[in-house]
Amino acid sequence: MNYMAELKKLISILRNKKLTVSAAESASGGYLSYLLTKIPGSSKVFKGSIVVYSLEAKIKFFKIPLPLLKKTEGVSGEIAGLLAIGVRKLFKTDIGLSLVGFAGPETQKGKKLGIVFFAVSDKKCTTVKKVIIKGGRDYVRKYASLMTLELLHKRLCVYS
Amino acid sequence: MNYMAELKKLISILRNKKLTVSAAESASGGYLSYLLTKIPGSSKVFKGSIVVYSLEAKIKFFKIPLPLLKKTEGVSGEIAGLLAIGVRKLFKTDIGLSLVGFAGPETQKGKKLGIVFFAVSDKKCTTVKKVIIKGGRDYVRKYASLMTLELLHKRLCVYS
Repeated sequence: MNYMAELKKLISILRNKKLTVSAAESASGGYLSYLLTKIPGSSKVFKGSIVVYSLEAKIKFFKIPLPLLKKTEGVSGEIAGLLAIGVRKLFKTDIGLSLVGFAGPETQKGKKLGIVFFAVSDKKCTTVKKVIIKGGRDYVRKYASLMTLELLHKRLCVYS
Repeated sequence: MNYMAELKKLISILRNKKLTVSAAESASGGYLSYLLTKIPGSSKVFKGSIVVYSLEAKIKFFKIPLPLLKKTEGVSGEIAGLLAIGVRKLFKTDIGLSLVGFAGPETQKGKKLGIVFFAVSDKKCTTVKKVIIKGGRDYVRKYASLMTLELLHKRLCVYS
């Protein structure tokens, strides 16, 4: 995937609009943050992230209720929304991103393999998307991270 | 770099020894966590991480003193040690990892380009290493992440 030009453009728009970003990610395990920090100067916009790779971490940092986590194994649109809102507040950034899903190779408790929920949240609204990505574990993680950044990119048009 | 076999072995040893791991990373921007979660089943050992990509994040989550951060721009062996200890306690894991550095392409305030400090901490001791990696920004980030995992791997021999 030739995404470097797109990434550069994204970071440049964020810098020009003086917007800051943070992220909470689970299935992608840090890849979303890695992408956001690939471009030199990204520290001007990206303040940090939390990789919540356990139910305990989702509870500790984001106060996601345990029954909700247990019911969904931590993977739902509602949880993606709560993480995006939560991380935005935690890092005091303009925008919060999130990504949760089942990257495989095995499904958990009958969940669909490759299902991913990702979200973009700012003070005005929180958008959550659901997608099912076909491919291996690494492909799902990388592609879902890029889709999250694409959603962020689209969202930036509302900022003058 | 053919590191997948090494990664599999590392996760397998951690699982067998029933050890849990967390990470605090700065320069690598999430890549260390991404590596730790590449192997299916890694959620049994890896609980999560914090990407502290700003001085504010280093203060908020790890209470690193501001004068120490300002003096070093957040990059020193002392800070790497404090992050590894801090993240281990924050996630209540057996082992905490950390990585800070200047990946470039520009040096900051006369700091050496490619300088990286990384640490492995458990209840008994905290080991900090310093390395200077020659190469582009992405190479420095990836290679330093692998070196951190290598240090973790070496450390595991002390566990029965």
